Amino acid sequence: MSPDQLEAALRQIGAERYHNLHPFHRALHDGRLDRIQVQAWALNRYYYQSRIPAKDATLLARLPTPELRREWRLRLIDHDGDAPGTGGVTRWLALTDGLGLDRDLVVSLDALLPATRFAVDAYVSFVRERSILEAIASSLTELFSSSIISERVAGMLRHYDFVSPETLSYFTPRLLQAPRDSDFALAYVREHARTSEQQAAVLDALRFKCSVLWSMLDALEHAYVTPGHVPPGAFRPT
Amino acid sequence: MSPDQLEAALRQIGAERYHNLHPFHRALHDGRLDRIQVQAWALNRYYYQSRIPAKDATLLARLPTPELRREWRLRLIDHDGDAPGTGGVTRWLALTDGLGLDRDLVVSLDALLPATRFAVDAYVSFVRERSILEAIASSLTELFSSSIISERVAGMLRHYDFVSPETLSYFTPRLLQAPRDSDFALAYVREHARTSEQQAAVLDALRFKCSVLWSMLDALEHAYVTPGHVPPGAFRPT
Repeated sequence: MSPDQLEAALRQIGAERYHNLHPFHRALHDGRLDRIQVQAWALNRYYYQSRIPAKDATLLARLPTPELRREWRLRLIDHDGDAPGTGGVTRWLALTDGLGLDRDLVVSLDALLPATRFAVDAYVSFVRERSILEAIASSLTELFSSSIISERVAGMLRHYDFVSPETLSYFTPRLLQAPRDSDFALAYVREHARTSEQQAAVLDALRFKCSVLWSMLDALEHAYVTPGHVPPGAFRPT
Repeated sequence: MSPDQLEAALRQIGAERYHNLHPFHRALHDGRLDRIQVQAWALNRYYYQSRIPAKDATLLARLPTPELRREWRLRLIDHDGDAPGTGGVTRWLALTDGLGLDRDLVVSLDALLPATRFAVDAYVSFVRERSILEAIASSLTELFSSSIISERVAGMLRHYDFVSPETLSYFTPRLLQAPRDSDFALAYVREHARTSEQQAAVLDALRFKCSVLWSMLDALEHAYVTPGHVPPGAFRPT
């Protein structure tokens, strides 16, 4: 495949497998969830957010040049901030606070769905164990995140009276950060995935990452929507 | 806790969290699944079976004495056999064959639910990364497996005309192997978990393992029963 063909194949995977297509996300954005269900989403998604710096640091540790490491370091700054109270992980806690979740419970991770933990840990392991090319390619879900973020923020503000713009402050910087990051990752993949094996590995990496995000929503839907079977030990509506 | 109290606490976890309590298993044993749903169970559970030798080998590699290694090696023999066509993994393929699944599809792992892969991989990682005591404790779900196996074999033979005793040949030796293995693991844990920290870690290890098995069934129920949303790329009824 030419770089353009590879990019088209990557975008096709997003069009078919990105989690904006998942019924739970559609319900979230369309206002069909109750406060408990939105809490469950935010609480579980916190684990994903909290592990993104670990995912990025494990790749940073393996990148061979200062140029690549400087570029990838931006992601750590985005998520961990430059000072206490800044950064994406903290902003996610503003969301869980705003939804009325106890912060100690969220940070303890005690109430997570096990499937959330397994999926997120699989992502961190993938980035640690696979080639640098595959690790970078697995970040390419960010190619598709701007549209879902816009849709999510607009939909949640319109439909939920327990959601405010401050609560959703996580998402605003992501509208700039995600395209910057995905531009870099896409350029890297276009340049470095040359053989058919490399291109197949890149496509598989993006499919894998889509399956991580998708399975997190499957678990939320199963536990809190349909059939609504909360597994032992996980967050329960009180 | 005394060793007896620790054992009682372990058995209590099983009474509350072992996957015999899961609605999917109850449906499987009560004959309320169709052939496709039983196929999906067997196909996904194959991945668990196929990774058990990896789980055991990664622990075997860390055990400090010939006595412990000889004991744990029995598990590899059970699962991988002594000759082509023997062992538990092969017997599981007799089950998927008997259910009419294409063996190449099963062995390829291409049709797995991503959540199956994430849960099983989490188990192998746990055993590789945690203390030997926790790794051994995580095997203690076998304390509870004899009853589920008896129930499963009887229920499946009674309710499904597409299931024969030969198809279920996997399970018969497990009725002897699992108690032998769990007797050893329980004795080890009773002897080596002495501090309250060690005892807490042992209990957490068993809770973790229960959550692995439970989340595999959550994913099956979600994809193939209620609401019946098969994630992209996974096995689909044809």
